[in-house]
Amino acid sequence: MAVSPLAPAAFPSLPVINGVRFASASAGVKYKNRTDVMLAELAEGSTVAGVFTRSATRSAPVLDCQAKNGGPSRGKAAILVNSGNSNAFTGKSGVVAVEGICNGVAEALGVDTDRVFTSSTGVIGEPLPWERITAVMADLRAGLSDDGIAGAARAIMTTDTFPKGASAEVTVGGKSVRIAGIAKGSGMIAPDMATMLIYIFTDAKIGHAALQSLLGQITDKTFNCITVDSDTSTSDTLIMAATGASGVSVEGRGDFAAALESVMLDLALQVVRDGEGATKFVEVRVSGAADDADARKVAMSIANSPLVKTAIAGQDANWGRIVMAVGKSGARADRDRLTIRFGDIVVAENGWRAPGYSEAATSAYMKNQELVIGVDMGLGSGASTVWTCDLTHGYIDINADYRS
Amino acid sequence: MAVSPLAPAAFPSLPVINGVRFASASAGVKYKNRTDVMLAELAEGSTVAGVFTRSATRSAPVLDCQAKNGGPSRGKAAILVNSGNSNAFTGKSGVVAVEGICNGVAEALGVDTDRVFTSSTGVIGEPLPWERITAVMADLRAGLSDDGIAGAARAIMTTDTFPKGASAEVTVGGKSVRIAGIAKGSGMIAPDMATMLIYIFTDAKIGHAALQSLLGQITDKTFNCITVDSDTSTSDTLIMAATGASGVSVEGRGDFAAALESVMLDLALQVVRDGEGATKFVEVRVSGAADDADARKVAMSIANSPLVKTAIAGQDANWGRIVMAVGKSGARADRDRLTIRFGDIVVAENGWRAPGYSEAATSAYMKNQELVIGVDMGLGSGASTVWTCDLTHGYIDINADYRS
Repeated sequence: MAVSPLAPAAFPSLPVINGVRFASASAGVKYKNRTDVMLAELAEGSTVAGVFTRSATRSAPVLDCQAKNGGPSRGKAAILVNSGNSNAFTGKSGVVAVEGICNGVAEALGVDTDRVFTSSTGVIGEPLPWERITAVMADLRAGLSDDGIAGAARAIMTTDTFPKGASAEVTVGGKSVRIAGIAKGSGMIAPDMATMLIYIFTDAKIGHAALQSLLGQITDKTFNCITVDSDTSTSDTLIMAATGASGVSVEGRGDFAAALESVMLDLALQVVRDGEGATKFVEVRVSGAADDADARKVAMSIANSPLVKTAIAGQDANWGRIVMAVGKSGARADRDRLTIRFGDIVVAENGWRAPGYSEAATSAYMKNQELVIGVDMGLGSGASTVWTCDLTHGYIDINADYRS
Repeated sequence: MAVSPLAPAAFPSLPVINGVRFASASAGVKYKNRTDVMLAELAEGSTVAGVFTRSATRSAPVLDCQAKNGGPSRGKAAILVNSGNSNAFTGKSGVVAVEGICNGVAEALGVDTDRVFTSSTGVIGEPLPWERITAVMADLRAGLSDDGIAGAARAIMTTDTFPKGASAEVTVGGKSVRIAGIAKGSGMIAPDMATMLIYIFTDAKIGHAALQSLLGQITDKTFNCITVDSDTSTSDTLIMAATGASGVSVEGRGDFAAALESVMLDLALQVVRDGEGATKFVEVRVSGAADDADARKVAMSIANSPLVKTAIAGQDANWGRIVMAVGKSGARADRDRLTIRFGDIVVAENGWRAPGYSEAATSAYMKNQELVIGVDMGLGSGASTVWTCDLTHGYIDINADYRS
């Protein structure tokens, strides 16, 4: 599949995170001739925290990670991820598969099974051939290296068109703290469904409660603010590990939180840029809502509207569809106080088309690859920004194909 | 545009409803060489009730109808509908247009303006050239006839691919009561957005409160149970008029309610059958939910899921996407109690693919033009049925075109 036109120029150069080693391997879970398993080994005492899908039909590995999240940070830890099969809706065999993989990792690395976190991404409802994964465990262990993160980013791809990585560095008390993360998502799965997996590593020192709280807060501003097609995965997983190898404690540090937010936002926006069939990257900025919750309702209603997304694909300055999406959102709205902007162009205000509206200028703006849709509700100070992409024939092509 | 492959063979033969006369005309609101205005004149004392969009950005005619709904049933009444322009988000000029049209109808027919109900459907945000409509008022009055309903059904079409009508007859105390209705919808508007307009007429006698209550209840089981693309119109309007010409009172009559429901359901399903780009008609039946509200959440989550709808377009028995849609719906769910059926074929149960699952048999079923997706939640007695269509390249073609 061709790389998304919205992809970054290249995979970024990510810093080594002391205390983490990566390996990847080809287990043949489903795909041939590519890597499909990644292993991250985390130094003794690493803090591991996670944020997971709220789907009521969560996969077996997600349920296992949630049960382990918040356990004691004793000894080493590990993360193992496979692509090609999501081990979701696989009944008891799914639980057996997770146990098999966790036991394999625990034995190979000398880690407590309670400290092994796994993710699986790919087709739903097929039993996961987990023995293929444990069969390459010795190879994975032998291949562990400080600089294997780029390989790991590739191994977790399904039909993503590019691997996704981001990093940041903060200086705390004259000492450097590093953050590096990888993600997969919005490529379609073989062909099943868009899922999102994110793994972030830092050499900072931070306790589980503080890290978990930080992840939750920042997820609400980053990964929970993107949408490709309004569908929610059974497998969405974000796991972050803090090895403490820098010796620098970051609890309560706003600069660390800001650096982490920049990494998470960068990864989230890369997921949108790899949205299925996407040709336009769209930021939806809502302000002036009665409160933040209302602003988010409006922003998501616009970002998820098939009529808005197809108009964007058609480069059509169809602001009537924005009015429609505001109206259906459920948020408090006063038609006569609405202002709608495409970029800096005011297209509608005071309940009608803006007096100086120029169809030519607005149409020219819509030809940009990156668009900003601004809506001011004129009611209060509630604000929300979300990111999405357009809805194109490419999306239909990818998702109307037969699974096999 | 080609007629939808899901269209009925022909427009039905609708009975004359005593007390109603119809006319249609070409006012040139936007379209050329076709009718675009319909007028219905309602006999003295007719009860008129309505159900309207809940959009916060409702159009001027919708707001006007809502203000008039429930007024005294004195004298004649009238309904005037134009296509080509929705008079939505048109500021004060929208109110002026509604007043202009209502005054024109009132003068032409000798009706109180409080008894003139108007609807407009078409592009948003353009001022409605209402004088073009009042200019043909004399022609409309001259053209009024008992059997003009089929012409009316055509005049309200926008990019609908076929006119929609349905009727029923009930015998009450040896006397016949007739119901006839027309609808437009899910064709895309010029090209702006899917809207739904429905007008139903009966010669039954019924008071406003009883008719309004009946309409609300039945709307929840019919028009509120269909979805094409999850987008909600600024103009959705259902108006029903009871002329009383049969002399038969139907208040509290279950058989009348059942007949009305059959007409409303028939019209609603015709709207789905004209869904933009639709090639498959899909009934989603959810049972065994914790309550009816949960069942509806699950049914709508499935019916609105782009991944489910593209799989159906691809004739793919992708039940994993049904699991996904159940999971994201927000309804109470227990993965291990879920049963999923395509037609009579059980594809998944007890948290896993059904033991006897046959990919070949299920794939053969998916080639049908009419499909039933059944989900039993295994939790309680909550149930809900909704109807939708698939998501195809045709939808993108229609909606990614430029408006002009």
